[in-house]
Amino acid sequence: MPSAFIPWKCGAALLSIPVCVFAATIPGIVLRKSDDVSMPGMMDTVLNLGLNDRTVVALAKYTANERFAMDCYRRFITMFGDVVMGVEHHKFENILDHIKKSAGVLFDHQLSAADLREVIVKYKKLLESETGGSFPQDPMEQLFMAVYAVFNSWNNDRAIVYRKLNKIPDTLGTAVNIQAMVFGNMGEDCGTGVAFTRNPSTGENKLYGEYLINAQGEDVVAGIRTPQSIAALEKDMPDIFKQFTNICKLLENHYRNMQDIEFTVERNKLYILQTRNGKRTAPAAVKIAVDMVEEGLIDKTEAILQVEAGHLDQLLHHRIDPSAKLDVVASGLPASPGAASGAVVFEAGLAEELTRKGEKLILVRTETTPDDIHGIVAAQGVLTARGGMTSHAAVVARGMGKPCVSGCEAMQIDYDKKEFQIGDLVVKEGDIISVDGSTGNVVLGEVPMIDPEPSPEFQKIMQWADEIRTLGVRANADTPEDATKSREFGAAGIGLCRTEHMFMAQDRLPIVQEMILATSIEERQKALDKLLIMQQGDFYGILKAMDGLPVTIRFLDPPLHEFMPNIEDLVVEITTLRLTNGDQGMIEDKEVLLRKVRNLSEFNPMLGHRGCRLGITFPEVYAMQARAVLMAAAQLIKEGFHPVPEIEIPLVIDKTELEYLRELVTNVGDDVMRETGVTINYTIGTMIEVPRAALLADEVASKADFFSFGTNDLTQTTLGFSRDDSESKFIPAYLDKKILADDPFIVLDRNGVGKLMKMAVELGRKTKPNLLIGICGEHGGESNSIKFCHNIGLDFVSCSPFRVPIARLAAAQARVKNMSGAKQDYGTI
Amino acid sequence: MPSAFIPWKCGAALLSIPVCVFAATIPGIVLRKSDDVSMPGMMDTVLNLGLNDRTVVALAKYTANERFAMDCYRRFITMFGDVVMGVEHHKFENILDHIKKSAGVLFDHQLSAADLREVIVKYKKLLESETGGSFPQDPMEQLFMAVYAVFNSWNNDRAIVYRKLNKIPDTLGTAVNIQAMVFGNMGEDCGTGVAFTRNPSTGENKLYGEYLINAQGEDVVAGIRTPQSIAALEKDMPDIFKQFTNICKLLENHYRNMQDIEFTVERNKLYILQTRNGKRTAPAAVKIAVDMVEEGLIDKTEAILQVEAGHLDQLLHHRIDPSAKLDVVASGLPASPGAASGAVVFEAGLAEELTRKGEKLILVRTETTPDDIHGIVAAQGVLTARGGMTSHAAVVARGMGKPCVSGCEAMQIDYDKKEFQIGDLVVKEGDIISVDGSTGNVVLGEVPMIDPEPSPEFQKIMQWADEIRTLGVRANADTPEDATKSREFGAAGIGLCRTEHMFMAQDRLPIVQEMILATSIEERQKALDKLLIMQQGDFYGILKAMDGLPVTIRFLDPPLHEFMPNIEDLVVEITTLRLTNGDQGMIEDKEVLLRKVRNLSEFNPMLGHRGCRLGITFPEVYAMQARAVLMAAAQLIKEGFHPVPEIEIPLVIDKTELEYLRELVTNVGDDVMRETGVTINYTIGTMIEVPRAALLADEVASKADFFSFGTNDLTQTTLGFSRDDSESKFIPAYLDKKILADDPFIVLDRNGVGKLMKMAVELGRKTKPNLLIGICGEHGGESNSIKFCHNIGLDFVSCSPFRVPIARLAAAQARVKNMSGAKQDYGTI
Repeated sequence: MPSAFIPWKCGAALLSIPVCVFAATIPGIVLRKSDDVSMPGMMDTVLNLGLNDRTVVALAKYTANERFAMDCYRRFITMFGDVVMGVEHHKFENILDHIKKSAGVLFDHQLSAADLREVIVKYKKLLESETGGSFPQDPMEQLFMAVYAVFNSWNNDRAIVYRKLNKIPDTLGTAVNIQAMVFGNMGEDCGTGVAFTRNPSTGENKLYGEYLINAQGEDVVAGIRTPQSIAALEKDMPDIFKQFTNICKLLENHYRNMQDIEFTVERNKLYILQTRNGKRTAPAAVKIAVDMVEEGLIDKTEAILQVEAGHLDQLLHHRIDPSAKLDVVASGLPASPGAASGAVVFEAGLAEELTRKGEKLILVRTETTPDDIHGIVAAQGVLTARGGMTSHAAVVARGMGKPCVSGCEAMQIDYDKKEFQIGDLVVKEGDIISVDGSTGNVVLGEVPMIDPEPSPEFQKIMQWADEIRTLGVRANADTPEDATKSREFGAAGIGLCRTEHMFMAQDRLPIVQEMILATSIEERQKALDKLLIMQQGDFYGILKAMDGLPVTIRFLDPPLHEFMPNIEDLVVEITTLRLTNGDQGMIEDKEVLLRKVRNLSEFNPMLGHRGCRLGITFPEVYAMQARAVLMAAAQLIKEGFHPVPEIEIPLVIDKTELEYLRELVTNVGDDVMRETGVTINYTIGTMIEVPRAALLADEVASKADFFSFGTNDLTQTTLGFSRDDSESKFIPAYLDKKILADDPFIVLDRNGVGKLMKMAVELGRKTKPNLLIGICGEHGGESNSIKFCHNIGLDFVSCSPFRVPIARLAAAQARVKNMSGAKQDYGTI
Repeated sequence: MPSAFIPWKCGAALLSIPVCVFAATIPGIVLRKSDDVSMPGMMDTVLNLGLNDRTVVALAKYTANERFAMDCYRRFITMFGDVVMGVEHHKFENILDHIKKSAGVLFDHQLSAADLREVIVKYKKLLESETGGSFPQDPMEQLFMAVYAVFNSWNNDRAIVYRKLNKIPDTLGTAVNIQAMVFGNMGEDCGTGVAFTRNPSTGENKLYGEYLINAQGEDVVAGIRTPQSIAALEKDMPDIFKQFTNICKLLENHYRNMQDIEFTVERNKLYILQTRNGKRTAPAAVKIAVDMVEEGLIDKTEAILQVEAGHLDQLLHHRIDPSAKLDVVASGLPASPGAASGAVVFEAGLAEELTRKGEKLILVRTETTPDDIHGIVAAQGVLTARGGMTSHAAVVARGMGKPCVSGCEAMQIDYDKKEFQIGDLVVKEGDIISVDGSTGNVVLGEVPMIDPEPSPEFQKIMQWADEIRTLGVRANADTPEDATKSREFGAAGIGLCRTEHMFMAQDRLPIVQEMILATSIEERQKALDKLLIMQQGDFYGILKAMDGLPVTIRFLDPPLHEFMPNIEDLVVEITTLRLTNGDQGMIEDKEVLLRKVRNLSEFNPMLGHRGCRLGITFPEVYAMQARAVLMAAAQLIKEGFHPVPEIEIPLVIDKTELEYLRELVTNVGDDVMRETGVTINYTIGTMIEVPRAALLADEVASKADFFSFGTNDLTQTTLGFSRDDSESKFIPAYLDKKILADDPFIVLDRNGVGKLMKMAVELGRKTKPNLLIGICGEHGGESNSIKFCHNIGLDFVSCSPFRVPIARLAAAQARVKNMSGAKQDYGTI
């Protein structure tokens, strides 16, 4: 039973007090209404509070039912003893089982008043021996102890973890409601239950819930009696049912949202204990929102807010069937969403070979390099022991829309033995595993998958989002296939087309290495000439797929050593060749290569010889790329298409770099237009991804047609956090110790990075009031960050194709929230 | 002959025109006076302009000396042909030699008018055959060609390089002066010469220079006749000499600076061609400035400006005798100033052993690691093939005040053969080399050294600087020895005491590794307990040496893998052990170690798990350091000293880190004070070295007693430049292409980094108006950067001990310049 169905474990805390004790004097005290935050691990309900050796007698007398009164008392002591005094629940159960055995009965409700009196005596002794104190007889003492226990439970481990996962501020605090007790267990004309006004799983507009006759809340959870479907209540208690359905409608209309309602029937009288917005799955959220608009209950802007944008993810990727039992053996970083199952394979070449034979595989590597690309292409998913959310494996997998779990540090790979170990568990090549790139889980064996199926309601809400939002949404895509997918998902263009992944294809890598190792400009030009033809083909495909829409093409960005073989591997090879008296010529060749690779290697590649620094030191490389883009555009124009290329220069720190490279590109552009006789409209802009570029954005803008915030790198440089290192090494501690509220690589750091972005927007637009400004870091697909982008006046966000719908919805929500000034909403989880 | 003695190659360009031709009509046109910028490679003087086939006849007639007129004409054609028409000088020389041979004479002045006429005919033919054009007969054409040639020479290679070296803006431009010609070669009552009003080498207040009778300027340079000392002029031409010395005094008094004066005597009449502030060595600059104040010629503030702060370096380090002939075989980065000679040694252990035997050594490594520290201690200097100005070798050598040349990429080391190669040159272990850490030069053989000897004038000018400056000057020092040296150099405290170098000492490294590899807190604590005693000793020594002055102690900063063995070495060891059937246990141990080292290694260590991130994840390490500092302070107080410890938390991005660690330190502080019964006054502050800390400085200030800008790291993160990578890989190209005006790791980037600093100062002081703010990056010792620090209101700069005097002077200059609003001064080089 999913947790959404256990209302007894949710909601603001309730202390229910027998009406006979407190009803007159304290009909209900509300300390504070803490919205509808609910939290596993937090203590919430204590029923029957106020009973003691004296009041239980009064209750027996008042109801003329001693057994009932004793049953309430023993329930109270169990609950109070467990959640307030901290004595483990199973110890009470043991006593109860013992007495049932002595009495020769099977179920609790078969126990007599006398049996229960014995239970109560033993419970009190248990409390004394376990806590050293005694069960408090004073109702006020009971009440205050319970209130403190609720407050304290705010800081227990499970509650803290839950808040962290759901980004609920620790400072929010909780409240305690004190209500008069009504009894669902007073006889056959009593009962208790919970219902959702609509189906929280599918969204169907039909009452959904369960109840039990003659019971208190915890009886349902205990699993001793099977609850009835709410529909059955119509037969059991027709009047109550009618009354309840009316109240449901009333509450839904009042709150303009699907409600999760707890109720009790005491002697044929219906009491509503609690109502709140109901949790729901993403498909249900979408359907309910659309239905309510069509029913005239809410308007489109409210509907937009009812769907949590981030949860649309569930609708767009293959995912593991949430009802499946999983054998999770480890977890790493959720590096690329979606899930996949397959046989473990450790080598890219083998992966390719086996895939041709039709096998489904998970590529497992300590970390991947460009040499492994064909393996990633071949595999269903990727699992690495090292590397963060921007590691090679993660970036490539996301680009391909393949699930990837990276930085699974518990995993020790032994390539020689062709196996990996997680603790004592050994997984061999060929064993089936599954990876869930949305959670980071690694699962043993195959798991059942669910397909994405955008519903008509989904299309509808997307349409409304598009009507409302003012922020543009583009996609990050590097291939014609991704470009096509992006259009399908509603992208208004490509905000980031990375050209380096094109260099990493297996057939191109040798040419790229040739280019890098060239010792003269002529030699380099020969390699570049070969690459030109390939790149032109790449750009032709992408520009064609995005015909009529802008495509921002970023020039070569990564440091060149990313295209070279691994140093450690070379060292092992050379040492081996030497010791085994290998061919001297081969040793020397390898040594020359090693020297060159070493020469290219860097202490801090993230801050190294990359981005436009390559364009400055090797202008011929950027010139080749400019020619490839513009020749492709010219060809398309001749064929009647309307390409809109935007050339993007990465990693600038100064307008001078942009000035230099702009001249280089426009010179090539002039040549191409002269050679082809075609006029091409293209723009030249830059990424803002280093603090200095943001600080000097007014100057940079003078040479740029557009800005695009590369917030991945801007976060790395502004915080001085290497993403690949920090996410595994210290960000977890920073989140634990509350030094950071969020992982800044997931949720944009508004205070720091955001301040720089705001400065850059203001400075840039001071120079050029109409400067086009976007964001293409991964934050471009994260709802909170999108809201910020809307607020500081960006023109567009760009994110991975699968996140485009999320971004469209989040952009609409940002606008709606700005219009209404509504506060942060934690409801729909 | 030093270049300062060749006035014909300096100065704003002069075109001297025979008086008979132009004097009446153009007595002197000044297009623009370009201050006193002079530049090698720039064309500057063309004498005798205006002569042609007709005017030469007039000149002969006017002077009644045909030989003289022809001599002027051939001189003019040579000079014009060379510098204006671009025909190589030696081709004119060849013709002249040929004619001298035919005429049977040895010297130019022995040629007859007829010989010279023949020379002139041949020269004109030479110009025709070389340029395709002919020698212009029209004086106006000659004039304009010469003027254009001057303007164009602004952009020739040597001039560009010179400007770059001396930070002269390319946009400054040059001017051309057109003067009437006076002839020093008209007979024995004529002459020409140059003199400095004081000795430019020593500063002695005595006329200093040379002259030639019956000569034109280039005769001196040609080296055919030996010039006379200016003193001899008193005998040769007593009246002229008296007149000249009076003029010298007059000019010096007028310009309030030592003058470099060119003069010509024509028929017993003295003409002053040019005067400008004379270049001088650092000792001369100091002496002249002090003397002039004492003579009442200038005041102290002017004296302060006359000495270029950066050049004091020459006075404070051992340096190579500037008059020595050097066999420079390669050059790298000038990583730690000073110079040293010694035998090449490749291994730290051997270096230590040989040093004990009294040998002087230069440690040569591809790069150094903590394992090499004892080798650096032992050696006279260090030379590395890789690594930048903050490489391990550079930082350690600077800390020890040892010369170091790093990143000498031309050098290929073969450890097996115990030799290194530079091109074809092979240098073996034991061969003597010298390194000049002030220039980056590597010299073959031993070189003569000059000792530093601060003169009384030096002391005087330092005293004046201290009276004037408002900016405090501290030193970066990690040992009691450095601390003592800092005090001697006038430091008002220690602005940065790095604690990691204390961890790298050879006897401590194993304990540090023990601490890092500990698998439990208990195990780690055991190692920490050992380190505590050692660190307490360190701090005791430093605080004692700086008794009464503040000592900013930075807690552990570098990533932990810096203390671990090298991965590549381990890989080679393991591969070797495996292939040679080595001991299985040893292989396994090494593999475990390799795995741990790998686990610690990072993709971008500069942005990794370091600085206060270590303090957050391993609080026990920072707690140990806090205890060591405060126990040392308590001990000193008991002994009657007055320690002033300032505890510095590195690399914060947020006030929350500081809050967390401040609490940790104050808890330890409370414990120490309770245990020892001593009250210790200490403060807790932070480095601002990541953009986010600067952006949020108002918040950070709320938890900080002081700020110190770590501009090395702030530059790395603001620009996204890894210093170790960028200085060898792309900064040179950036400087060449004028994308950057200066290496931002040498001269503070005011536009970018400076903007952040200014923000941080304003924000920090908004929260705490009296917040103490300093800088401890290497910019703290660079004059231009110090000026900026003064301007934005910092309280102190901190630099390496040897740069303290430079900083004191630069701080005074910054204040003086602000007071007078004086413009940038390029004069004294």
